[in-house]
Amino acid sequence: MAAPFHKMHGLGNDFVVIDARNDPVEMTGPRAHAIADRRTGIGCDQLILLEPSSTADVKMRIFNADGGEVEACGNATRCVATLLAKPADIETVAGILKTRPQDSSASVLLNPPAFEWELIPLAMPMDTRDMPVGWETLERPMAVNVGNPHAIFFVDDCDKVDLERLGPIIETDPLFPEKINVNVATIVDQQTIKLRVWERGVGLTLACGTGACATAVAAIRSGRVQSPVSVSLPGGELRIDWKEGGPIEMEGPATHVFTGTADWSQFG
Amino acid sequence: MAAPFHKMHGLGNDFVVIDARNDPVEMTGPRAHAIADRRTGIGCDQLILLEPSSTADVKMRIFNADGGEVEACGNATRCVATLLAKPADIETVAGILKTRPQDSSASVLLNPPAFEWELIPLAMPMDTRDMPVGWETLERPMAVNVGNPHAIFFVDDCDKVDLERLGPIIETDPLFPEKINVNVATIVDQQTIKLRVWERGVGLTLACGTGACATAVAAIRSGRVQSPVSVSLPGGELRIDWKEGGPIEMEGPATHVFTGTADWSQFG
Repeated sequence: MAAPFHKMHGLGNDFVVIDARNDPVEMTGPRAHAIADRRTGIGCDQLILLEPSSTADVKMRIFNADGGEVEACGNATRCVATLLAKPADIETVAGILKTRPQDSSASVLLNPPAFEWELIPLAMPMDTRDMPVGWETLERPMAVNVGNPHAIFFVDDCDKVDLERLGPIIETDPLFPEKINVNVATIVDQQTIKLRVWERGVGLTLACGTGACATAVAAIRSGRVQSPVSVSLPGGELRIDWKEGGPIEMEGPATHVFTGTADWSQFG
Repeated sequence: MAAPFHKMHGLGNDFVVIDARNDPVEMTGPRAHAIADRRTGIGCDQLILLEPSSTADVKMRIFNADGGEVEACGNATRCVATLLAKPADIETVAGILKTRPQDSSASVLLNPPAFEWELIPLAMPMDTRDMPVGWETLERPMAVNVGNPHAIFFVDDCDKVDLERLGPIIETDPLFPEKINVNVATIVDQQTIKLRVWERGVGLTLACGTGACATAVAAIRSGRVQSPVSVSLPGGELRIDWKEGGPIEMEGPATHVFTGTADWSQFG
């Protein structure tokens, strides 16, 4: 099990990318959790496992630091895109993503978003453009699935929201049978959104790529902004381009920090 | 600048060890700080730089995560000892240390401790066996310099001390012109000490090797325990052997996690 790995980050959202295309690495939840430990492991928000694909150029599996496997991560997809160093189709649980790397950034074409309540999914029928629910000051969210489920709250000042407290309450509300990523967004102007995200299974992060996509889509869909949109997150900026019915194009930085080798069996 | 690095830890106290013996790496405070960042760098408590030595087998320089260069780190010395894979003399700012590696542990011979108030150093003359000073519930410490300065408080239950609050107050007290590492220790029996440490420039840590040495020496010197002593830290156990006037022998685990290569110029 000599598969090498790369440490990368997109806007401070950091990844251990194990290139297991030639040397298979068996991944389990406990092992991913041990690798993600920042003192006794390698340390990351998400572990990415690259495997051979029969339908695309490469298959990408994503594990959160808690060991759970998840469907989609926009920042990780950009990192993998720059690692592949040529336009590539990447197979994920959420479908095949088309990517195009540049020097230290990449664009990813995410599949068209889903708005139907069953596909978010919600626990009951509801208009996902304007949901008649609320948690204290956070009310009437929109919901979008961009490979993973997002609730988007448009507020006057997203910096004033106590997301550390409200995030986990909303994330685990029974209304969301597969839990939910919680986005609080402020419209700056017709082309700019300021965003903070509570990520499902992770917590507050510097930058959530799929959150930026879901929020831009919700803002475009509700006429709050016009595409393309610049989304400003605590870790930096992403550019999102989307037209009704089409795929979502996300563009932003991807940074390679170092390359390493490890004995994967040490992680249990 | 192709010097490779090793990620290692001793009882959860983690290090990036750059082997710059063949390829020199220029290290500055800001660069060490950038490398220590756990998301955008490699991530560690301390950065260790191995350089050629004219007086020993290797020279070891130690940088805290804040970028400041420090004199001594017992856990790091054990890690470097296992990396060298044979008995070796390691040159540090605090003197030359003799080391002997075993499989996944190592013993380090630290120079005899200093007890004179000028050598701790303290700001004024004082009996370092029983200092007539106190900070709230923490009173009458002993002081020992084992390559770096330590204050040791013996208390009934070290788990009950609010070290997160009192640590930085004592660390920066004008009594300690070069600041101080703060140890709170509880005697379990004649051969066992339980210890928590607030590390100067770092904060609360899982295990401080020099803190274990300083505390064992203070406890032996004051007749509280008999050598050899087992010191139980939140991250695990160290064995300390010391006789009045002699060097301090510390023995404990050292774990190699992975090996990597990075372009050091990216870190500023």
